[in-house]
Amino acid sequence: MSRDTSFRATGLRIGGGETAPVTRALPEEVPVALSYEGSTQAVMMATPSDLEDFAVGFSLTEGIVATGDEIAELHVQDHETGIDVQMWLAGDRGAELSRRRRAMAGPVGCGLCGIDSLDQAMRPLPRVTARPVLDTDLIIGATDALRALQPLHDETRAVHAAGFLTPDGLHFAREDVGRHNALDKVIGALARSGTEAAKGAFVMTSRVSIELVQKCALAGCGMLIAVSAPTARALRLAEEAGITLVALSRNGQAEVFTHPDRVTGEPHVA
Amino acid sequence: MSRDTSFRATGLRIGGGETAPVTRALPEEVPVALSYEGSTQAVMMATPSDLEDFAVGFSLTEGIVATGDEIAELHVQDHETGIDVQMWLAGDRGAELSRRRRAMAGPVGCGLCGIDSLDQAMRPLPRVTARPVLDTDLIIGATDALRALQPLHDETRAVHAAGFLTPDGLHFAREDVGRHNALDKVIGALARSGTEAAKGAFVMTSRVSIELVQKCALAGCGMLIAVSAPTARALRLAEEAGITLVALSRNGQAEVFTHPDRVTGEPHVA
Repeated sequence: MSRDTSFRATGLRIGGGETAPVTRALPEEVPVALSYEGSTQAVMMATPSDLEDFAVGFSLTEGIVATGDEIAELHVQDHETGIDVQMWLAGDRGAELSRRRRAMAGPVGCGLCGIDSLDQAMRPLPRVTARPVLDTDLIIGATDALRALQPLHDETRAVHAAGFLTPDGLHFAREDVGRHNALDKVIGALARSGTEAAKGAFVMTSRVSIELVQKCALAGCGMLIAVSAPTARALRLAEEAGITLVALSRNGQAEVFTHPDRVTGEPHVA
Repeated sequence: MSRDTSFRATGLRIGGGETAPVTRALPEEVPVALSYEGSTQAVMMATPSDLEDFAVGFSLTEGIVATGDEIAELHVQDHETGIDVQMWLAGDRGAELSRRRRAMAGPVGCGLCGIDSLDQAMRPLPRVTARPVLDTDLIIGATDALRALQPLHDETRAVHAAGFLTPDGLHFAREDVGRHNALDKVIGALARSGTEAAKGAFVMTSRVSIELVQKCALAGCGMLIAVSAPTARALRLAEEAGITLVALSRNGQAEVFTHPDRVTGEPHVA
């Protein structure tokens, strides 16, 4: 199993009256198993980079651990069919997980499938009390700052990225074919470096559907900034969870849909 | 529970030196439960339109039924927490499903999560033998033809669409916040109208990750045309499954990555 993140493919370009050979770098996607105490909890298709960050972030946003420290061991193993990230939990957490598993209804994963009842789809979220205040200029420049830190996207034009914005700038940029994986990678990178998500904003290259707001709330981050539009439900969830949702952030402008009190630097409309 | 597919939100536009109120139509996403014989099989976040098509397409691509006729009854029920599509299967299929369920490892759903072993991530696919041959001009015009049939995208600029292309043109256009749901809706619409997927090509507004190729193969469709790039794995899967993968189809050009023999109208490079 290769850990390459891209692959150079050949094709035929059609149209314009002629057919010509073309080569193009395509992003890899690999099945990544997330396993605890020797049993696989979930398999996600993901870009095979920053897998330690991904595994820690997934463990946090799925509620399997409360802090990164609760993961005592983490090994990334290559198999012919994919990559297995084996984790062992500290102290009693492992035995506790095994007990919970027998009662659990499967992982939420990307938030868009795999859940098995209507109630579970809308799992209750903690209300975010973090109060980072970020300047308008910093916010409207965040997606461009992230754009400058996407080497795999430069190569393939086909992957998402997420990052973490503080008054110091954009940090922890991570890329993935799945936007939810990219955000889990950032959340894991923050935890592994001992950085509090409460101190800044998540920045995404994608649209905002509910799973991103869920992960933002579970990580305790008070602001989510995205290039594209939110869904109506993502907006309502951000409102309820106390998250400042900034979307359509591009070309030097952005739209703030919820909790605009974390945005400063321009006069607010009453 | 409303069946509205969009919601008019208000926000603040920041940047450019002034803050101004803005209104914007956002797409709805609603938890949709797919239930058989009274038990929920999966919950997907989806656009609440064409739900009968969605339910039939999902049932087919998840292998719950082999033909649309095997769904004897289908009722769409609105609940406070979401929408429940209740299906009852014909003859022995219901009892069979209940037996299989006890041994099953959960639905694949969007193909990107919820599966629980590395082997299951790459479920074996039928090889597509359908041999529709479509003209280059028709293929390179397909994404524009689909673009003209996306009323919810016109309103929100934030949802995907899928359609079915035959020598007669583009049919069965369906929209959804999830690209995999949009394709399931088209597959269901074909089945409900008695149209064979083998007779044309699926057209998508999105990137191509493996779940779209899987659904294409399971529906028996020989060609997939998409606006954006495929992943490397989607390309390999299309090669193996015998599917013609046409991607980056825009601005009067497209790139054919696999099985170009279904494309005609221009001289092929040897």
